[in-house]
Amino acid sequence: MKSPVTAVSGVGEFTLIDRIRKIIPETDNPDVLLGMGDDCAVVRINDQKVLLLTCDIQVEDRHFRREFISAYQLGRRAIAVNLSDIASMGGQPTYALVSLSLPRDLSVNDYDSLFRGMQDELDPYGAIIVGGNLAQTEGRLIIDITLLGEATLNRYLTRRGARAGDKIFITGQAGSSGAGLFILQKYGKNFPAKYKDLVESHLNPKPRVEIGQAIARLGLASAMIDVSDGIASDLYHICHMSRTGAEISQEKLPFLPILNDVVRETGNTLMDLVLHSGEDYELLFTAGPDQQEQIQRKISEPFSIPVTEIGEIVSDAEVYSVITPDKQRQVLEPRGWDHFRVNRAEKEKKK
Amino acid sequence: MKSPVTAVSGVGEFTLIDRIRKIIPETDNPDVLLGMGDDCAVVRINDQKVLLLTCDIQVEDRHFRREFISAYQLGRRAIAVNLSDIASMGGQPTYALVSLSLPRDLSVNDYDSLFRGMQDELDPYGAIIVGGNLAQTEGRLIIDITLLGEATLNRYLTRRGARAGDKIFITGQAGSSGAGLFILQKYGKNFPAKYKDLVESHLNPKPRVEIGQAIARLGLASAMIDVSDGIASDLYHICHMSRTGAEISQEKLPFLPILNDVVRETGNTLMDLVLHSGEDYELLFTAGPDQQEQIQRKISEPFSIPVTEIGEIVSDAEVYSVITPDKQRQVLEPRGWDHFRVNRAEKEKKK
Repeated sequence: MKSPVTAVSGVGEFTLIDRIRKIIPETDNPDVLLGMGDDCAVVRINDQKVLLLTCDIQVEDRHFRREFISAYQLGRRAIAVNLSDIASMGGQPTYALVSLSLPRDLSVNDYDSLFRGMQDELDPYGAIIVGGNLAQTEGRLIIDITLLGEATLNRYLTRRGARAGDKIFITGQAGSSGAGLFILQKYGKNFPAKYKDLVESHLNPKPRVEIGQAIARLGLASAMIDVSDGIASDLYHICHMSRTGAEISQEKLPFLPILNDVVRETGNTLMDLVLHSGEDYELLFTAGPDQQEQIQRKISEPFSIPVTEIGEIVSDAEVYSVITPDKQRQVLEPRGWDHFRVNRAEKEKKK
Repeated sequence: MKSPVTAVSGVGEFTLIDRIRKIIPETDNPDVLLGMGDDCAVVRINDQKVLLLTCDIQVEDRHFRREFISAYQLGRRAIAVNLSDIASMGGQPTYALVSLSLPRDLSVNDYDSLFRGMQDELDPYGAIIVGGNLAQTEGRLIIDITLLGEATLNRYLTRRGARAGDKIFITGQAGSSGAGLFILQKYGKNFPAKYKDLVESHLNPKPRVEIGQAIARLGLASAMIDVSDGIASDLYHICHMSRTGAEISQEKLPFLPILNDVVRETGNTLMDLVLHSGEDYELLFTAGPDQQEQIQRKISEPFSIPVTEIGEIVSDAEVYSVITPDKQRQVLEPRGWDHFRVNRAEKEKKK
């Protein structure tokens, strides 16, 4: 007798990944320094270097909508999200493989623009596309990119390594990309000019590759991740892998003031945008409390980017909270972008 | 003024790949030994070794139908087609990354089986899944796998290197997988028992990894490719990259006698199946005429597999022909599986 069928949509992504771990045996290959469960896999290639491996699948109408983003921007963005994974380990991007499922009616011009965007995004790092695979279908446009990178053995950063007492830092501003997406969803391409920076954050994210490399090279951080699912979700990954808790201070969170306008227009709360919307592709990292001055002097100033301390790692793994401006401690839910977006899509369907 | 829009469906795969080559600049990175245009990209990692990189995207209803293939078989097969690319260079498979676009209604059991199949297919080579990416959508199941491998510098084989006078060889039997697919399309899972081996060839292809490694290690071949699109298409890739022509002998082509029954049942010609249907994942290679005895003694006998000489490489790149049993020379069209299948699908639509 078969037990009732559970669909993948009924279990969370964490559970789906855990199921793979139970199927894939622990490897006894000493070169595999890190398998599934971080931004990149890490494989030793010689006494000094490791290979970083990451991939990201982007599905039309799930991760992007062709009415909002040009083919060129889409190409750049599909590479950028992978660059960001390499950045979060402090690595140098090297080689990309591009798999595309192309709708038959996609124009050859858009096809060219897609590759031009990918190449332009790789160029600053001397990285190139070395291979790929094309399929034509009746379905949606799908872009799956595998990106390789290199890092120094014993210098790359992972989600593991945060210690109680470490401060939590984030580069740039939080919530801009998510806010930009809501603006696009509300106005389409003819959005009010004041939202330009937000929309730009969403369409043209800037992965922090050089900053990630500097943080790793200078040994400033104890753990690092990129913000793809939102601070609440991504910080939780660091805590989970480091077996710690965290406490962040709502007042310290960096965001553009224009987000207040988006809150009024879209009905999201400010904290939804700042903590739970994602795709900012900023770096979130932890560092010893004595590193704060170095971080300002060696990262923030030379790269002309704010690096903001937003809270602290605590030893109790059960603690995962945000301190409100009136000093209330609230449980921080590790729900992220995906969950948020799906819920919103469902809400919209019900309308 | 915009020129009339050309869709990707209006240009061939060759053209689409050529367009990428025009956009991606020639790299000056001396470690990139081979970029796009072979079964794998080849990147030097040290003085002795190269890294092989390949990827393959499989889209439901385009590359497989869930009514014909179990999730476990699909997992094995998705890995097998990538193993075959590593095999065709003479490499050793090492690490896989798995990107999946999952239909929300896919059962968790099928999800597990998919990964179990992938792992079982990788196991004999000590290769493992080190990373991946999951998306859930309303659409079709899509499996995109990137597989890495290793090979010895100066020993790996490519599509380039065939010389006039070389003999052309193929392992195993041709056309079995394509014939198996036609049987599945005609009968579904309740096909006559006599077709079991053909259907098995289609659902559970056996990539020739150890054989590819032996051919490379022993220096037996001048060029090699795996048969994914059919002999006519894949041999053309060797000729194109080696700037040669080829002449094959219809009488020498190896196939299972049961293919004659499939011809009667499906209306395909025997040569359609043997030359233009693909997914056999056998190895097609060229070798000096003096190597024939070695190939039998060091490959065919120890691996218990027929290795058949089917023709000869010629210097004139304009010659691409098949000699019929009555000694007529016919132009061999380099159309392959994809073209074949699309045409067939269109024919079926018109019915």
